[in-house]
Amino acid sequence: MRYAAITDRLAGLGSDKWAVHWRAKSLCADGVPVIMLTIGEPDVPTPAELIEAATRAMLAGRTGYSSGRGEEPVLAALAAKYSARTGRTVGVDQLMYFPGTQTALYAVMQGLAETGTEVLVGDPLYATYDGVIRASGARRVSVPLRREHGFHMLADDVEAMVSERSRVILINTPHNPTGAVLTRDEIGAIGEVAEAHDLWIVSDEVYESIIFDGEFASPFDDARLAQRTVVVSSLSKSHAVTGFRAGWCVGPAEFTHKLLPLSEAMLFGAQPFIADMAAIALSRTFPVTGQMREAYRRRAETLVRRLGNTTGLKVMMPQGGMFAMVDITRLGIGGEAFAAGLLEQEQVAVMPGEAFGTEGAGLVRVSLTVPDDDIEIACDRIIAFVERLTAGAA
Amino acid sequence: MRYAAITDRLAGLGSDKWAVHWRAKSLCADGVPVIMLTIGEPDVPTPAELIEAATRAMLAGRTGYSSGRGEEPVLAALAAKYSARTGRTVGVDQLMYFPGTQTALYAVMQGLAETGTEVLVGDPLYATYDGVIRASGARRVSVPLRREHGFHMLADDVEAMVSERSRVILINTPHNPTGAVLTRDEIGAIGEVAEAHDLWIVSDEVYESIIFDGEFASPFDDARLAQRTVVVSSLSKSHAVTGFRAGWCVGPAEFTHKLLPLSEAMLFGAQPFIADMAAIALSRTFPVTGQMREAYRRRAETLVRRLGNTTGLKVMMPQGGMFAMVDITRLGIGGEAFAAGLLEQEQVAVMPGEAFGTEGAGLVRVSLTVPDDDIEIACDRIIAFVERLTAGAA
Repeated sequence: MRYAAITDRLAGLGSDKWAVHWRAKSLCADGVPVIMLTIGEPDVPTPAELIEAATRAMLAGRTGYSSGRGEEPVLAALAAKYSARTGRTVGVDQLMYFPGTQTALYAVMQGLAETGTEVLVGDPLYATYDGVIRASGARRVSVPLRREHGFHMLADDVEAMVSERSRVILINTPHNPTGAVLTRDEIGAIGEVAEAHDLWIVSDEVYESIIFDGEFASPFDDARLAQRTVVVSSLSKSHAVTGFRAGWCVGPAEFTHKLLPLSEAMLFGAQPFIADMAAIALSRTFPVTGQMREAYRRRAETLVRRLGNTTGLKVMMPQGGMFAMVDITRLGIGGEAFAAGLLEQEQVAVMPGEAFGTEGAGLVRVSLTVPDDDIEIACDRIIAFVERLTAGAA
Repeated sequence: MRYAAITDRLAGLGSDKWAVHWRAKSLCADGVPVIMLTIGEPDVPTPAELIEAATRAMLAGRTGYSSGRGEEPVLAALAAKYSARTGRTVGVDQLMYFPGTQTALYAVMQGLAETGTEVLVGDPLYATYDGVIRASGARRVSVPLRREHGFHMLADDVEAMVSERSRVILINTPHNPTGAVLTRDEIGAIGEVAEAHDLWIVSDEVYESIIFDGEFASPFDDARLAQRTVVVSSLSKSHAVTGFRAGWCVGPAEFTHKLLPLSEAMLFGAQPFIADMAAIALSRTFPVTGQMREAYRRRAETLVRRLGNTTGLKVMMPQGGMFAMVDITRLGIGGEAFAAGLLEQEQVAVMPGEAFGTEGAGLVRVSLTVPDDDIEIACDRIIAFVERLTAGAA
């Protein structure tokens, strides 16, 4: 049977990269006590108040069809959030509600990029970006995020990769997997590149609430850059509601107007009762947000202190997000071999840096989303693994 | 700013067609007592047991990330459904869970059709098909559904429209907007066309549970055609859970394998607690399914009896689904003029047949999803409107 070329473009994505994760899950299923440091799933339950909000909305009959743009209460809450953040009036006509950041990003990229165009994105990069870009038909062009600059995207590095086919600069701050938080000045400089070449900036801000060091900045908060910026985000990481799929995009009104028919064709609307939960989540500060931020910070500090002092591995303290990168180059093996060996010998699952791009070589990504005790045990096991490795090499 | 061509392909879709519906909604918001016979939203609440199931799953922590294929319980329930229906073993590897039929259909069409290919679909057609086909880049090729054949798709009419670029035949049974239910023989004959030209059959079976006359048949239930068939469906219409977005596709295992990376890029999984609700909904018969079917049948019969006997308009008794088509050609005005006039003069909102394609000219579609009393009042008002029209013309 014949398939569309998109299936070839996406073939193999999303499986090989996650080999360690799937192997670890299968070990867990067999009863092996693996410490899972692979993915970014908050280790706290969804706040009871948000489950109650969704339940109340279901019981109130908010169970019918929605629209391509979304439900009034959540759109109003998002308009308030972005109006407050930017100091401008951000209208509902600039917003679209989506079932999760991933879906928002997919739709946004479909609306902007296509075959014959290029999307500039930092490397290392979040694992699903490749699929989203390839699905649009566009080519991914990597902007190296340099270790020596703390993995911050530099405007000069972006400029060097611009071509006539460039259409979008995709940024992510705080950054997954590196934890880099872009400064206002860095974003301003990247924005100048975007302006010089008439490029869009798509800004994935899903870790906005999780910053340990520095201040959140967004191109959307700069009135001039806002005209060429589309933000995608969600409540997943800020409110521990990953499985609710409550996300959105915000950008120029013209952009959402053009994207609306695609959203209607793709989705025919999302769940009104989940949108109502999201409106409540956005209406005020929830303790869980700060609690998760402090827990991730504490765990990252534990990794830095314990591994840095014993193994000689360099743990890079993230500025934000849910992950820490560990530099293993000293050991002379790649991230994949390290992750595979660590899983088999010590039952600790981490992601090889190679899963996130060529700049991830010699790194592993450690998730901060397990309880503190497990982070301590994971450190014990990593230390034991590295000592054995080093002894073997000696 | 520059946009992808998909935004041009979809521009204007989904708004003009629904002009009467939006106008009616806006009148409702102003307090005008409009009887809404435009869209197919069940008029019964979601069964309390299903709301409880979703709530229970949320409280049990089924609020984390899912996967591209979906959660084990709902996939097992779907495998059981299709194994029982087909008499074959349908495995989980043939299934993918999606947040609604629309999303399943969008993903399926992306995986099969593309620029340079054609999708054959009956006209009249469901309003969102156009967007789904155009989004893939493919061209829609209309197969006329002839009034004199009760709007059944005929294999000869399909064959006549096949070209070298044909890739997919999109069928929908029971059919929206016409209510036609294809017979096993008709599907077999369409299947022969598909086999002769190596085409896929995508079968939208969302009204499977709502048949008044005849028996449900699907190309997926024919072991030979199943190799080239992908079914999309959901619980929306069978269980009154439209806003839960609980849908799926089922097809060859090779097909789902190829589609999986696209689902991951588009969605990163749907809501586990809704999937658990869906598993329970699929596990046994719910009274609401039969109640809705009998209510729609009764209301369709009311329309046939009351309008047929007085106005001389021909109401076509649907064989299934949630709609009835009314032939207004006798009046000498188009469906759009009829719908606009009926709304303004009598506060009854119906969909002009033209919204569903060229074969919809001279027809209006009446939704059966309002209480019986409202159907009676709508009949009174339509009769008054037609009498005034006829008197004016006399």
